[in-house]
Amino acid sequence: MEDVKVVGFLGLGNMGTPMAGNLLKAGFSVVVWNRTKSKAKPLLEKGAIGADHPRQVAEKSDVVITMVADASAVREVLLGPDGVAASNRRGLRVLEMSTISPADSIGIAQELSRRGMAMLDCPVSGSVKAAADASLTLIVGGDPSVLESVKPVLQAMAKNVFHMGPNGAGCYMKLVNNVVLAAMLAGFSEALVLGKKGGLPPQKMLDVILQGSARSPLLEFKGKAIVDANFAPTFALRLMKKDLTLALATANEVKAPMPLTSFVNELHQAAIAAGLGDRDFSAIAQVFDGLAKAG
Amino acid sequence: MEDVKVVGFLGLGNMGTPMAGNLLKAGFSVVVWNRTKSKAKPLLEKGAIGADHPRQVAEKSDVVITMVADASAVREVLLGPDGVAASNRRGLRVLEMSTISPADSIGIAQELSRRGMAMLDCPVSGSVKAAADASLTLIVGGDPSVLESVKPVLQAMAKNVFHMGPNGAGCYMKLVNNVVLAAMLAGFSEALVLGKKGGLPPQKMLDVILQGSARSPLLEFKGKAIVDANFAPTFALRLMKKDLTLALATANEVKAPMPLTSFVNELHQAAIAAGLGDRDFSAIAQVFDGLAKAG
Amino acid sequence: MEDVKVVGFLGLGNMGTPMAGNLLKAGFSVVVWNRTKSKAKPLLEKGAIGADHPRQVAEKSDVVITMVADASAVREVLLGPDGVAASNRRGLRVLEMSTISPADSIGIAQELSRRGMAMLDCPVSGSVKAAADASLTLIVGGDPSVLESVKPVLQAMAKNVFHMGPNGAGCYMKLVNNVVLAAMLAGFSEALVLGKKGGLPPQKMLDVILQGSARSPLLEFKGKAIVDANFAPTFALRLMKKDLTLALATANEVKAPMPLTSFVNELHQAAIAAGLGDRDFSAIAQVFDGLAKAG
Amino acid sequence: MEDVKVVGFLGLGNMGTPMAGNLLKAGFSVVVWNRTKSKAKPLLEKGAIGADHPRQVAEKSDVVITMVADASAVREVLLGPDGVAASNRRGLRVLEMSTISPADSIGIAQELSRRGMAMLDCPVSGSVKAAADASLTLIVGGDPSVLESVKPVLQAMAKNVFHMGPNGAGCYMKLVNNVVLAAMLAGFSEALVLGKKGGLPPQKMLDVILQGSARSPLLEFKGKAIVDANFAPTFALRLMKKDLTLALATANEVKAPMPLTSFVNELHQAAIAAGLGDRDFSAIAQVFDGLAKAG
Repeated sequence: MEDVKVVGFLGLGNMGTPMAGNLLKAGFSVVVWNRTKSKAKPLLEKGAIGADHPRQVAEKSDVVITMVADASAVREVLLGPDGVAASNRRGLRVLEMSTISPADSIGIAQELSRRGMAMLDCPVSGSVKAAADASLTLIVGGDPSVLESVKPVLQAMAKNVFHMGPNGAGCYMKLVNNVVLAAMLAGFSEALVLGKKGGLPPQKMLDVILQGSARSPLLEFKGKAIVDANFAPTFALRLMKKDLTLALATANEVKAPMPLTSFVNELHQAAIAAGLGDRDFSAIAQVFDGLAKAG
Repeated sequence: MEDVKVVGFLGLGNMGTPMAGNLLKAGFSVVVWNRTKSKAKPLLEKGAIGADHPRQVAEKSDVVITMVADASAVREVLLGPDGVAASNRRGLRVLEMSTISPADSIGIAQELSRRGMAMLDCPVSGSVKAAADASLTLIVGGDPSVLESVKPVLQAMAKNVFHMGPNGAGCYMKLVNNVVLAAMLAGFSEALVLGKKGGLPPQKMLDVILQGSARSPLLEFKGKAIVDANFAPTFALRLMKKDLTLALATANEVKAPMPLTSFVNELHQAAIAAGLGDRDFSAIAQVFDGLAKAG
Repeated sequence: MEDVKVVGFLGLGNMGTPMAGNLLKAGFSVVVWNRTKSKAKPLLEKGAIGADHPRQVAEKSDVVITMVADASAVREVLLGPDGVAASNRRGLRVLEMSTISPADSIGIAQELSRRGMAMLDCPVSGSVKAAADASLTLIVGGDPSVLESVKPVLQAMAKNVFHMGPNGAGCYMKLVNNVVLAAMLAGFSEALVLGKKGGLPPQKMLDVILQGSARSPLLEFKGKAIVDANFAPTFALRLMKKDLTLALATANEVKAPMPLTSFVNELHQAAIAAGLGDRDFSAIAQVFDGLAKAG
Repeated sequence: MEDVKVVGFLGLGNMGTPMAGNLLKAGFSVVVWNRTKSKAKPLLEKGAIGADHPRQVAEKSDVVITMVADASAVREVLLGPDGVAASNRRGLRVLEMSTISPADSIGIAQELSRRGMAMLDCPVSGSVKAAADASLTLIVGGDPSVLESVKPVLQAMAKNVFHMGPNGAGCYMKLVNNVVLAAMLAGFSEALVLGKKGGLPPQKMLDVILQGSARSPLLEFKGKAIVDANFAPTFALRLMKKDLTLALATANEVKAPMPLTSFVNELHQAAIAAGLGDRDFSAIAQVFDGLAKAG
């Protein structure tokens, strides 16, 4: 496959903007589009090329990256009337980086394949900071030769690139990873309530846990958020709920019982019922607090 | 309080032996006793002094450390007929390092206090390797001035010493910490089953998870054990079950609902029913495997 | 609305056949159709009129009843190319008696409404025996005046008719009811394992429970099935799983946390993974047995 | 064994008073004692004989019945300084009707056996009304020949008498039964929340459920209490919590995993944390309401 010179980028949110910025820094020509036009401005000022719609982005690019809200947004920018597929650019490579279900990802990849385009699912693991530092982790599903051909693009944004298997395997792994994160945070939250009811100082509990084998970036950052009850969102609780729901639907398809995750999912439901959906996902701690104080 | 010169050590198992060894290295006189006499031999060869029973250890020591199996063993070596209390050494300091319940720990400390002895609960966080390296974490409950007076003893064995509050607070924190570990491992195990049912390679899943914010010593070591299905015990599953049962009993006393932990506890019960009690606590993964394959 | 003389019946399974038979007994003309033609034979012999496809049934009927497997079958017989809607019989009343989700039911009712047809959702509570005895319970959602006009039809099949609210409310209530049944059976199964592990005789446990305030037709019939380990299906476990999945999806829409049901649902998932999907839903007991014996 | 003429009754609460009254009606001489003396008055007026302490009751009786709050109260009235055992009446038969753990019951029976007395555990299933109507169910553990000899006593109070096995088996069965009740009520409560969030009228939901196979005295009475949010206690939630805790401790001994019950138990813990411990056990519904509204 040809070397990549021009990269299109669809979706310029908190993550997409720094990721596209890193592509510019790495020397790629970058064509950008966002539903809300004004968000493109900082990138245009740094030399990115604007476009009126995703189709136009595709017409100008060797590779198109999508980083949007959910499966319906992905479908629209890729398969909609002014979408990427409408460009009819056979051989175009699409890197779908949103977190959507494996089933949706596979379906969209098949649609694109029928138009002669190759899609990889490459969901992202990492924070806004890692997006800025080009130290993201990308979890990839799809044709390994396509992956090989876009490695320079991915390495401009990520420190680690894992190939998990065929189309959908990247999305699948993202869900597996988020299941782990949600369970860890729930377990930590419940343990903290136990300690608080016994009079142990929350910050000291966190200190001890962070010296032990549970020491992890997750508990370091989110543990502090929970101890301080500071739930300014870096990843909204309703988005974690969305991922858990996708994980459970996927589990249902492969007949994997998920008793722990289904419970953690319901706790997120309770958090949303309590109005915490737009807070950080670490606000799950407040559900445990609520159970311990008042029903 | 007087400087400590002679330290008694009761309980020379996998952890106790290297811990007592480090006390010798640090220049303390060490008086040792173990129910099975032969286990004392390596320490005697390194210069430790033997004793016939815990009372004799107490008679020769400024500080006595207990590192035994459970609360009933602690009671016997401290309060039994030939136990530490029977020495009537007023002013003796006892460092109780076994993992027992806060209620048991407080009760034993009160008994000792009536005989003029001061006990700290100092349960240990860390592996056999950390015991050998003198890099343990000690979680302490009890009188801060007693703690201050024994700091050189503790620092001969531990890298971190946390004072959590009055008697029992150390044991309480140990339970809080183990609740976190058990939940993490259960969440990881369930996530892995989801991935395996979808055809993702277990080792690659672990690689991705260890690059993400769940990266932790626990998942590094136990994740590998689970991927390799190698459950040679470093901490037996039945001991984790014991700690979870203590945590739930403690939660019941302070009226803290623990829905997640109670479920994790029942999974451990299922593991024991399946004959996994003496395997490593990471064998909990096999319960999730069982649920996904056959009821 | 006009009096009903001719009733169409789509779906002649274990439940549909005796229900249509009771309509004949009550003096209605009955037009029948089933995907597998041979199943219509017993009813044709009793005087029912045959039809080639659902559209033809609709053309001959005042009221059409659907009693088929799932939402996709309902859509096909009602909205498919040879479906009821294709008859263009304005004023036709449709009684949809399958167990489908409220959302599906509302969507289908709206489609029919656009064609001038009025649908009620009337899922059925009761066994094959109750279908034969005309002692079913019907749980109805939709326009009360339509319900009033079809009362004689319903009373030919059912002892109780409950109107729960607008379209979808009948389906919704059916899910609520099945959530109760699944939880009861799971609770009973787990309790029985506790008793068995303690050596109590299963049949005696059932006797005691049936003398107490848990005495219910469910535990009478399914309790006996569990004690005898006789899981010949009257309602297949995979169908209960389907309903629980619908209930959880519905709960997700209305933001109702369902921690207990989500767990019961995962137990059904484990039962299916163990190959019990086609056994009676009381086979859920075997999952509890499995947990207590081997992981 | 001799025919029973005189029955001693220890514990004259809501249940004990009508039970002792029925013994009088049946023609037995009844010797009564209660910690709060004034509670004996109604029975004394009906011809019962008073006593100063349990020992005195035992000295005058062929059979002694205990119906008190918990294991520690049972121990006191049976084994305390002025307790039944102190009477040294070899051959005395004791019917222990309180709900205590199998382990406690077995231990107490052994103590009495050493003094030549035979105890049966006969916990009671049934309401205050059933106590008044002599329609209780008694669940018996212990020597069948002792049971045979006291049948007339039991039949004066109970409609059903089940012999479950050796000492402790009656208590064990009582726990099994209460596990079923708690799970049913929790399942019903959660289902009701699902319905309420979807706009279904609670009373109508209850009507439908009571026409279906979940129809049971429990849901009839407690369902109404929940719909009306009337939690005047007939069996306090904290007592159900106590029984669930006993059931889980017993399960732990026999290695029976109880994932559902352990969760139901934690919901009761949450109810108690919310101040509902002294309300009826049907107030568990408020925990589900709380989860659905605010964390």
